[in-house]
Amino acid sequence: MRIKDDATARSCTSDGAPVISVFDHPWLGGLFADEDACEIWSPDRQLSHMLAFEAAYSRALGAADVSDAKTATSAAEVIETFKPDMQELRDGTAKDGLPIPALVAQLKRAAGPLASAIHTGTTSQDVLDTALALTLRENTELLLTRLQALIGQLDRLNKKFGTNPLMGRTRMQAAMPITVSDRIAAWRAPVESHRSRLQELRPRVEKLQLGGAAGDRKQMEPNAARIARAIAQTLDLAEPDFTWHTARDGIAEYAGLLSLISGTLGKMGQDICLMAQQGLDDIQVSGGGGSSAMPHKQNPILAELLVTLARFNATQLSGMHHALVHEQERSGSAWALEWMILPQMAVAASRSLAAGKSLCEHVTAMGGATK
Amino acid sequence: MRIKDDATARSCTSDGAPVISVFDHPWLGGLFADEDACEIWSPDRQLSHMLAFEAAYSRALGAADVSDAKTATSAAEVIETFKPDMQELRDGTAKDGLPIPALVAQLKRAAGPLASAIHTGTTSQDVLDTALALTLRENTELLLTRLQALIGQLDRLNKKFGTNPLMGRTRMQAAMPITVSDRIAAWRAPVESHRSRLQELRPRVEKLQLGGAAGDRKQMEPNAARIARAIAQTLDLAEPDFTWHTARDGIAEYAGLLSLISGTLGKMGQDICLMAQQGLDDIQVSGGGGSSAMPHKQNPILAELLVTLARFNATQLSGMHHALVHEQERSGSAWALEWMILPQMAVAASRSLAAGKSLCEHVTAMGGATK
Amino acid sequence: MRIKDDATARSCTSDGAPVISVFDHPWLGGLFADEDACEIWSPDRQLSHMLAFEAAYSRALGAADVSDAKTATSAAEVIETFKPDMQELRDGTAKDGLPIPALVAQLKRAAGPLASAIHTGTTSQDVLDTALALTLRENTELLLTRLQALIGQLDRLNKKFGTNPLMGRTRMQAAMPITVSDRIAAWRAPVESHRSRLQELRPRVEKLQLGGAAGDRKQMEPNAARIARAIAQTLDLAEPDFTWHTARDGIAEYAGLLSLISGTLGKMGQDICLMAQQGLDDIQVSGGGGSSAMPHKQNPILAELLVTLARFNATQLSGMHHALVHEQERSGSAWALEWMILPQMAVAASRSLAAGKSLCEHVTAMGGATK
Amino acid sequence: MRIKDDATARSCTSDGAPVISVFDHPWLGGLFADEDACEIWSPDRQLSHMLAFEAAYSRALGAADVSDAKTATSAAEVIETFKPDMQELRDGTAKDGLPIPALVAQLKRAAGPLASAIHTGTTSQDVLDTALALTLRENTELLLTRLQALIGQLDRLNKKFGTNPLMGRTRMQAAMPITVSDRIAAWRAPVESHRSRLQELRPRVEKLQLGGAAGDRKQMEPNAARIARAIAQTLDLAEPDFTWHTARDGIAEYAGLLSLISGTLGKMGQDICLMAQQGLDDIQVSGGGGSSAMPHKQNPILAELLVTLARFNATQLSGMHHALVHEQERSGSAWALEWMILPQMAVAASRSLAAGKSLCEHVTAMGGATK
Repeated sequence: MRIKDDATARSCTSDGAPVISVFDHPWLGGLFADEDACEIWSPDRQLSHMLAFEAAYSRALGAADVSDAKTATSAAEVIETFKPDMQELRDGTAKDGLPIPALVAQLKRAAGPLASAIHTGTTSQDVLDTALALTLRENTELLLTRLQALIGQLDRLNKKFGTNPLMGRTRMQAAMPITVSDRIAAWRAPVESHRSRLQELRPRVEKLQLGGAAGDRKQMEPNAARIARAIAQTLDLAEPDFTWHTARDGIAEYAGLLSLISGTLGKMGQDICLMAQQGLDDIQVSGGGGSSAMPHKQNPILAELLVTLARFNATQLSGMHHALVHEQERSGSAWALEWMILPQMAVAASRSLAAGKSLCEHVTAMGGATK
Repeated sequence: MRIKDDATARSCTSDGAPVISVFDHPWLGGLFADEDACEIWSPDRQLSHMLAFEAAYSRALGAADVSDAKTATSAAEVIETFKPDMQELRDGTAKDGLPIPALVAQLKRAAGPLASAIHTGTTSQDVLDTALALTLRENTELLLTRLQALIGQLDRLNKKFGTNPLMGRTRMQAAMPITVSDRIAAWRAPVESHRSRLQELRPRVEKLQLGGAAGDRKQMEPNAARIARAIAQTLDLAEPDFTWHTARDGIAEYAGLLSLISGTLGKMGQDICLMAQQGLDDIQVSGGGGSSAMPHKQNPILAELLVTLARFNATQLSGMHHALVHEQERSGSAWALEWMILPQMAVAASRSLAAGKSLCEHVTAMGGATK
Repeated sequence: MRIKDDATARSCTSDGAPVISVFDHPWLGGLFADEDACEIWSPDRQLSHMLAFEAAYSRALGAADVSDAKTATSAAEVIETFKPDMQELRDGTAKDGLPIPALVAQLKRAAGPLASAIHTGTTSQDVLDTALALTLRENTELLLTRLQALIGQLDRLNKKFGTNPLMGRTRMQAAMPITVSDRIAAWRAPVESHRSRLQELRPRVEKLQLGGAAGDRKQMEPNAARIARAIAQTLDLAEPDFTWHTARDGIAEYAGLLSLISGTLGKMGQDICLMAQQGLDDIQVSGGGGSSAMPHKQNPILAELLVTLARFNATQLSGMHHALVHEQERSGSAWALEWMILPQMAVAASRSLAAGKSLCEHVTAMGGATK
Repeated sequence: MRIKDDATARSCTSDGAPVISVFDHPWLGGLFADEDACEIWSPDRQLSHMLAFEAAYSRALGAADVSDAKTATSAAEVIETFKPDMQELRDGTAKDGLPIPALVAQLKRAAGPLASAIHTGTTSQDVLDTALALTLRENTELLLTRLQALIGQLDRLNKKFGTNPLMGRTRMQAAMPITVSDRIAAWRAPVESHRSRLQELRPRVEKLQLGGAAGDRKQMEPNAARIARAIAQTLDLAEPDFTWHTARDGIAEYAGLLSLISGTLGKMGQDICLMAQQGLDDIQVSGGGGSSAMPHKQNPILAELLVTLARFNATQLSGMHHALVHEQERSGSAWALEWMILPQMAVAASRSLAAGKSLCEHVTAMGGATK
């Protein structure tokens, strides 16, 4: 238990840091963490994607006749089973602003005479952005599954309670009687749209990053196109006809979709909070949270959480758009801003889908009165 | 001249208010205003769209046999030529939170015995949101034209200066020599993508809003579908299969695209500011701004403006996503937040495209050295 | 009526532009505009502050024996009665990024042989930032008056309804019975704090800006200190011991306070929206807004507006803090971002205080039940 | 090493979660983590503050003659040495939305017959907000120390390089020669102001929270005042005359100051990035980061980091102000938004001060040329 282990809990080292993020927090994680999303965005998965790029790159050097085929294959095999020294990665990041120089140094050391078939001609951003593309693919799969599951739950609720009367409320005032079905339809429609948006967006983010030092692939020429094609094939990524080192529109757009998703759930959560008010009693949700002072209460914890996550992502999105101002051939500051924000937005969006589904599952009554 | 006219300048009335927005400002407008975009978002254009909806609605009542055909047509004709009393609209907005009750009251008064064929069964949000859809269509047309024009300018620059050498810079440090073409390509790629995004997005925003009081079209039944089809046809809008009174995902997504556009231009502007530094001298731009203290300076005014507009829209976007938390059947507070923010974002995006094009036109030299 | 006058409504010129901001809008202004705040932030008031600085500067040149005393006085008199050509200011702003070079050229033209006693040694930012300091002083006076007035209204409500029972609600659920007094106390406490904050903050923003071209006052030496003292005295501003051209912390802090104020009112507005729900009926507010479809409704327009303004300012504040990254001796882009955002935040804060007070005045019942 | 341990790395449990925050990240932590700040905001420190409140509360029940003195003391002693079951805390948070009900249940279980002297009359928010006040006190001490240290470094740089010439740059263009001293003065002035701001702000955040279930202290009456005084004394906190359960202005103001601090450093970082450009060469910084593709580069990693942290906090601040809209007697959603954002802002501000100081220490040359 981290909290009881003073030695690790008190130092900010790579193993056992005192975590301050709600997503990783020992007890707040009970509310905010999302196991599947956290795994997708976890350091070890990021590292495995980085190594997957480096291995694919080495193999591509062979495929493009830049390296001897056997050397390239052997180098790739070294990379694929490599376990880096994490403290070196951390120290390297502190010094270089990113982990790749230290990682590549370790890889080359491990590869010995095969070192020339490792990373030669490519650059840190190719590795990190391609790794991000692989992460986003997994994240999109998770979102699609969860959007579908949420639709299933909404349809279930609709089938069960849809014909019940409900007082329609506009501007927080009783307006006209509607049905539960009408309100659920307003929750559901954007969920369907988000699935279309994700599909449209995939080719704009699930794509290879390959530019080399200054983005022009010069150090890979005249074999750059062959190298690119080989890596894209290995990693099953789209092969863009340009380097997107500084064209962050796809990433910012993806962040926008994450916030659209959590925003959609936030609207549902806000509605359920309002419906659950005594005096209105438009919904019953089981499993609500207790209070340390008032054991009689049934607080709509998950519904509130949806509102929180929506406002969190609405806030974060701004930072991702500021990161569009990405100067020259690589902006250390704008790029690092993405690292600070995007993983949190992704986990928040996934968590909101999971919490939304769970909330639906706990609904035991909807509508019935039109006061 | 407003500023000299104390009577109008000193009162916040509808005719001659002391404007505080940079887009409408007597002198700051020289930098920030955008004639085409301001016209699209102007009150009179909004009003004409609102009246277009009301007229189409009256005609649709006729087409759906809810009203007598002649009554419906005559009512529509009254609406189409109507000039509202603006002070009444303002007073009505102060009282009701939106202008439609006051506008409808005026229309019905003007229509006399035809009044029953006006607005019966529909609601304020149908009018305002459909008017917004019409505005967004015009805005999209403007953006598409300007994105195309910007591409033309970038291609012209590329043709003229593309082969010139340029020092590639990463993390604000000289990295490797590239060409002017490489840098322009990074500016251009997202511009192309934005055109695709706009086309994908159009059906999600250029759509009829028709829900009636509580969004369920009940007051229009059993003729709601016929009415909807007729209006959609008249206004040439998509006919969604649901009311989007509270599903603001399309609007928030549109705002995201506005910020992606200004962000793309912001990156270009930031690059040009950096290129224009003495000591780097990677670009020459004519017509630069002077200083009151240093007449020798050639300040890169338009390039700076692009950065400002990018950061402005990146900031605003957050508010549009907070407005996704739109409670129950209509949120007065979330909806009004859209009114405060979206027009400014649209004008900022259009202005950034115009300023970006103008900036390109003033470039007299790019690259040439690789210090 | 602007809207009927096509000639002016269709052009973005300085006289009669189609305004897109809700604060200046012909009908939305009925909800959002604030006559007093708009006047404080109006172009003509800004201009008068700019001329006040220039006149004080000319007089200071005399007082510091840089200019002949009579020349300085005469130059100041020319400035004090000067009516600029607004189109020239606009054109100058378009070219130079700010209006001062064009304004100074006009002033010097008007002053003829006195021109040397005008603006010599100072710079655009000295003029604009000192004018802003004068605006902020007026704005603070307005806020202090309105905070006091709001406290008066809250005390009146407390006196009238304070002992009435009210169901305390936590996490949107009935918790424990409290009194109306308890809830009003939670609204009132921050209002008191804001008054202290404003007083603490005044010396950090109501201060002379005087740095000259590059902020080091070199062109004013060896008389810079005397010039600064003389202007500060004339304009009754603090005389900081440093140029704050690029130290925007005071401005950003002021923006923070504007958002704290609108946020405080936003909490009150949200509470009143919730209290006004049928089924809870914890408050009665007269004069509520009507609906075009449901004349029976009494919508809590002003309470919703308070929420909208709070979220608007919470959004904007981020942009003011991004403007802290103000590069080198003057950032055209960060500074212009302040111009876009700060006036709107100020009007929103003032409007929220006015709307909050008005809302209190319309309360006809509070509490009484503890369901 | 967490990354190699699949069992722990793959599960989102309280011991060994895959951390996604840059502050806690195994290698990105090398750049972003701040050992002192992370410790202040660590779960175990939070927990110790929570227990400190509970113990002080039990003692206060004794001091106020609510509990028998010996029972109260014994209960406090149980609390002070208590080691909670973390999984229960996590499960409780998942269920109740906060950890206090589960923590109190454990405490009462451990205390057996002393249970009545534990938590009776107080509520979760009293515990968590008072714990936050204790955290903020520690955080403020850290900031004050670091602000002072930064001033020391800036003074050292000024002493060493201050008289060197430097080209003053406005709007990113060479303006007029200044000295290094002039630029350092612009960095230093806000740092001094922040120290004053922190001192002014302390009494607005370092204060006891004590309201009980609905904020009116009713369950503690008639001994509430005595209880409050006793706890405030024990914990050395201010004793406010009102419950601030929903008055979050102090917290939002504190967040604003965190962003003012990182913004001040962001301006310095941006300047240093610009000064470090080849062609300008206004600064030399040793220990710059390397590139995986270009070993010759000396990237200004820490200067970039300062810009990143400034934009991160500028982004986050907005969310803290949205959390001002804190409905009724307790908002689950607004409060949880603070938990998500405030710790990150605090660590970012502290990290920016540490990185700024370290950056200054690595400066080996400033100014010298006035190209």
